[in-house]
Amino acid sequence: MAFELTVGDLDDLVRGAALLGTGGGGDPQIGRTLVAEALGETGTITVLDPDDLGPGDFVIPPALMGAPSVLVERLPRGSEPVDALRALESFAGRTATATMPIESGGINSTIPLFVAARTGMPVVDADGMGRAFPELQMETFAVYGVTGSPLAIADERGHTAIICTGGDNKKMETWARALTIRMGGVGYIAEYGMDGDTVRRTAIPRTLSLALLLGRTIRAARESHRDPVAALSEALASTLYERGEVIFTGKVVDVDRRTVDGFTRGTARIADFGAGSHCVIDFQNEYLIARVDGVTRVLVPDLITMLHLETGEPITAESLRFGQRVRVFAISTPAMMRTPEALAVFGPAAFGLAEGFVPFERLATRAGESHV
Amino acid sequence: MAFELTVGDLDDLVRGAALLGTGGGGDPQIGRTLVAEALGETGTITVLDPDDLGPGDFVIPPALMGAPSVLVERLPRGSEPVDALRALESFAGRTATATMPIESGGINSTIPLFVAARTGMPVVDADGMGRAFPELQMETFAVYGVTGSPLAIADERGHTAIICTGGDNKKMETWARALTIRMGGVGYIAEYGMDGDTVRRTAIPRTLSLALLLGRTIRAARESHRDPVAALSEALASTLYERGEVIFTGKVVDVDRRTVDGFTRGTARIADFGAGSHCVIDFQNEYLIARVDGVTRVLVPDLITMLHLETGEPITAESLRFGQRVRVFAISTPAMMRTPEALAVFGPAAFGLAEGFVPFERLATRAGESHV
Repeated sequence: MAFELTVGDLDDLVRGAALLGTGGGGDPQIGRTLVAEALGETGTITVLDPDDLGPGDFVIPPALMGAPSVLVERLPRGSEPVDALRALESFAGRTATATMPIESGGINSTIPLFVAARTGMPVVDADGMGRAFPELQMETFAVYGVTGSPLAIADERGHTAIICTGGDNKKMETWARALTIRMGGVGYIAEYGMDGDTVRRTAIPRTLSLALLLGRTIRAARESHRDPVAALSEALASTLYERGEVIFTGKVVDVDRRTVDGFTRGTARIADFGAGSHCVIDFQNEYLIARVDGVTRVLVPDLITMLHLETGEPITAESLRFGQRVRVFAISTPAMMRTPEALAVFGPAAFGLAEGFVPFERLATRAGESHV
Repeated sequence: MAFELTVGDLDDLVRGAALLGTGGGGDPQIGRTLVAEALGETGTITVLDPDDLGPGDFVIPPALMGAPSVLVERLPRGSEPVDALRALESFAGRTATATMPIESGGINSTIPLFVAARTGMPVVDADGMGRAFPELQMETFAVYGVTGSPLAIADERGHTAIICTGGDNKKMETWARALTIRMGGVGYIAEYGMDGDTVRRTAIPRTLSLALLLGRTIRAARESHRDPVAALSEALASTLYERGEVIFTGKVVDVDRRTVDGFTRGTARIADFGAGSHCVIDFQNEYLIARVDGVTRVLVPDLITMLHLETGEPITAESLRFGQRVRVFAISTPAMMRTPEALAVFGPAAFGLAEGFVPFERLATRAGESHV
């Protein structure tokens, strides 16, 4: 069912989106600020349920592309994602009736909200990753047959490019990434334009309201002095994601982070409080694999999130720092993201990992115990 | 006046184009082969004089973009430049009535001939550089106010991108270069679409027939055992280029060449036959500056060409080899390429050289003598 989003919802929404962003997606506060400014005190955004869409709808998802680490020093001017969406409309010869996130993650959950606030367009409660991923072909849209291009990309001067790579969504990613790098590390894109029936068939449904639910859950637990992770596990049980579980608790002892080819890559190491165990997490914008004492415990596309030990606040790979006390919280992905065709696009092998995907709940059973 | 170009003209044309290419522009034989195949035994291409064009004409110049060194190992499939031109037509909503080179140089003199042979379109006897340059904003079109974008770029799979950078032709170059690199080092572009009046106002006229004249002159001199450079100087005297002169004669003793950021960059050193003098030439695809014993003798945009000592055949920077016996032959650029606004775009400073432009005929006077 459709609902109205207000400025009062934004803190919870970006907190939940940061959680689903699984370490990537950039500083959630940047997105929050953008949307709040566009909404003003009294504005609202209409959020449509995917079931509200029909074949006559044309949905264009906009997004920020680039290394989140660059964005911190390079705030958007404001109209970039609208410029990209308009350029795509003009090229496609078709006007968008709604917008939608391509992913759930700090800033890319908010870019469509910003476009909606600016244009009055509704936003669809769904996305193409059900979490965040670093590359544009890693979309359930692509997995289930949607062509990503034509893609429009805009810079902060309103200059644009259109990329047409037919069914080759990986090449679309490669070309757009090259332009993003030349734009100084950040570009704004619009891609995967599709009708309403296709949204219902290929998107992960209701992930904006999920982000809102998870963000509220963390806040409410904190306010009532409950354990946030227990509350999160409970909230997830009634969603497509089903399971959430702490796999490690400890202190960040090392973060190796660098910007390579337009991505933020690196490794984080967490030591537990005494037993001598270590959790090592590799990331490419997002957390990809978590190993405890050399044993794999969570693998992409399952979600690896890092929560501040006391507050339950999600911590992105960008803001991980030595000495932070954290819990590593794993979330299982929806079934449509664990099919063979989905794993071919965003499973471990797509990130150069040697291990075949095993759902984290089965890895937990193998490991025999969990480090709560 | 319009004339018909046949397969029999191609050897002379590519020889003259290689000379005007001033070291860049790629292997002229690749372009010759492409056009000859498209023409067949009996085909002809209509070459229009710029004065034949009217305001109703729409001229689209296509070109190869990238490092010539890559092209040697990566022959075009054939339809790429036509794909780029068609993508630009489609985006602009306007059909081209003619095509035209963007530059005079080995392969880019022939790409529009190939498009003309494939499509039946006439080609205009003019271009936007009057020689070859390494970057897309270095066009007399740009100098005299034409907007380069929208630019279309195509790869060997028929995938395309459109770049719209408004009046920022340098950004257009930067973005197209980024895509070219991702395409494996070579892309095919169409840009600077313009009407007939604009061609007459901004292009260097009659450079295709000039290439043909220079190529024929070298061949005829060789066949009649005359000195090719004397014949070239004579032929140039009746053109916009006016002067051609040998500034050094010797043997190639060192070539330092590398592919950097999509360009072929380097330095060549030539030693004379005994007196102990050296000529050192820096290049970025094209020869940019020639110094003799540390004294600057020719500066971009004046043309520096390298001719095989016996045959007068032009030698590209790509095919320079240790031991080749050569003459360094300088050609003065047309007056419209030596204006302050032209020098701001493709004078020495545009290539990071510290020296201000001085016409080579004045540098020769300063040097006091020429090493013929």
